[in-house]
Amino acid sequence: MAILVIHGGAGGDGPWLGKTPLDPARIDCMKQVLQQVGSKLESGEIDCLEAVTLAVEMLEDEPLFNAGQGSVIGEDSTITMDASIMRGSDKAAGAIINVSKLRHPIRAANVILQQGWPVIMNSNAADEFGIANGVEEVSQDWLKTELRLGQWQQWKNSKDRPGSTDEDDSVLDHDLEGRVVTEFSDEGMGTVGAVALDSNGGLAAATSTGGMTGKPAGRVGDTAIIGAGTWADNKIAVSCTGVGEAYIRTCAAHSLATRYQFSSDLAQSATRLLDEVAPLGGRGGLIAITSDGEFIMPFQTRLMYRGSWKNGSLEVGIGPPLEQ
Amino acid sequence: MAILVIHGGAGGDGPWLGKTPLDPARIDCMKQVLQQVGSKLESGEIDCLEAVTLAVEMLEDEPLFNAGQGSVIGEDSTITMDASIMRGSDKAAGAIINVSKLRHPIRAANVILQQGWPVIMNSNAADEFGIANGVEEVSQDWLKTELRLGQWQQWKNSKDRPGSTDEDDSVLDHDLEGRVVTEFSDEGMGTVGAVALDSNGGLAAATSTGGMTGKPAGRVGDTAIIGAGTWADNKIAVSCTGVGEAYIRTCAAHSLATRYQFSSDLAQSATRLLDEVAPLGGRGGLIAITSDGEFIMPFQTRLMYRGSWKNGSLEVGIGPPLEQ
Repeated sequence: MAILVIHGGAGGDGPWLGKTPLDPARIDCMKQVLQQVGSKLESGEIDCLEAVTLAVEMLEDEPLFNAGQGSVIGEDSTITMDASIMRGSDKAAGAIINVSKLRHPIRAANVILQQGWPVIMNSNAADEFGIANGVEEVSQDWLKTELRLGQWQQWKNSKDRPGSTDEDDSVLDHDLEGRVVTEFSDEGMGTVGAVALDSNGGLAAATSTGGMTGKPAGRVGDTAIIGAGTWADNKIAVSCTGVGEAYIRTCAAHSLATRYQFSSDLAQSATRLLDEVAPLGGRGGLIAITSDGEFIMPFQTRLMYRGSWKNGSLEVGIGPPLEQ
Repeated sequence: MAILVIHGGAGGDGPWLGKTPLDPARIDCMKQVLQQVGSKLESGEIDCLEAVTLAVEMLEDEPLFNAGQGSVIGEDSTITMDASIMRGSDKAAGAIINVSKLRHPIRAANVILQQGWPVIMNSNAADEFGIANGVEEVSQDWLKTELRLGQWQQWKNSKDRPGSTDEDDSVLDHDLEGRVVTEFSDEGMGTVGAVALDSNGGLAAATSTGGMTGKPAGRVGDTAIIGAGTWADNKIAVSCTGVGEAYIRTCAAHSLATRYQFSSDLAQSATRLLDEVAPLGGRGGLIAITSDGEFIMPFQTRLMYRGSWKNGSLEVGIGPPLEQ
């Protein structure tokens, strides 16, 4: 048995309004990730750790997700990215904080995991470490897309508008022609992640993000934090998405692992965890997979980009309905 | 009932050899912290959050502990400091990563907690945030002490010695005249922390560190990580000390909270947690206090600087024995 589950972020309030003009490309990307990485995982060509790394790399390469190229732009008009990865069998972990020069932040986190020590590396040192270890160096210009520059300008205009408050600093999802297609205001939207179970029973989890549009310099969300955005042990692997602060304050990914360990009820454990996170301002979602091969993709937002691959069978979804 | 428990780091292998010439000053500092902050906590002048902040500030001000002035020096000969703080009642949290200009990193974390969002701030932005919010700015020269410069030189010599390996990069604890008085090699030694229960039943935890001598630039340990080095909820407050990577990979502080929640046996929960952390290279210790007023200060190392204050009664210790 080999299973791969991915997400491309959760967010939004209210009922799902159907796909935006940008969503078919996101769906296509998720299908490709599931097909390509899932096949390799099933054949035994790669293990769970490499599967989640490759899956997240492909999601980082899709500019419509908020990770790698196409990451959202911070207050000071730069992109800084966070990522973390964990292997369940030995609790090996790697994380990078606020990198700005890497095409694949998750690969840098993977290299950190492989080297074993330290577990977390920060900012310029993390960029330099990644580049020295073969992670492709890219420029800020390469990372920035027209879509994200438009969203950043929208955020800036909203912020500069007299009488504006943080509460109406919502960020608009433009299509490539600049038309507003949907509205969102939280970093969950577009953060990417993957969890995998390989044929040896190994579990791994990975998460990567550009954070949130207009984030203050130096702000670190849950994606870089082992136990908050990412967790894996020998029973479960978890990747979370949502407003990061609430996931940090609840130690969300580790909390789900613990709840599952005591109850053995995965769906109920996830519901209770999300119910605990939401009141702290952290409505969002998560993906999780267990050593028994059970997996879930719950969310409490308008939508969560998500998909799964199991025994050659593939499902993807954005709003409530799943499609093949 | 009001209780304050503090630590000044755990570390070392083998049996305790008695106090070093520097230890009486450390004991004096801990007694002053417990007496002064404990009295204010008991009188209701301050709550649990301010108590752990004040206690850690005083420990940061003692150059013989590895936090604030007297922090250990990194590979690139600079001091970078991590700190985090959490309030149990509402799971409010604040953390700062790799700051280099603050006299009291824990106060910056406290201000972050009070402001509510974001929860984690990084490097220069965290320094600037702290200074803008009244945390005293200091220079690297002010932070560095003769003791730490001597330890750094010792580390450097050991590293540069032909045939040396990481394994013998031990760091020597010199007394003020430069004589070697004891040997240690892990960051747990000197990290400081505090947990408190106030008369309203409130719980809080705080931890602060300079990391480890010779740490690579950009390395982040568990002290900045909510759930790893620091945790507080409405049942328990925890501050950990030891080799940070193992505490991150086990989500140590949150793991203890969860174990306690399910078993209600604090001592057993702590023993099991430390037994899980140790095989990952993380022998160390922790302090924890519950809403029922039970507290513990276990460690699996040669020593842990520690002390408690309860109803005007004060205890401190370094090796196994406690003294009044």
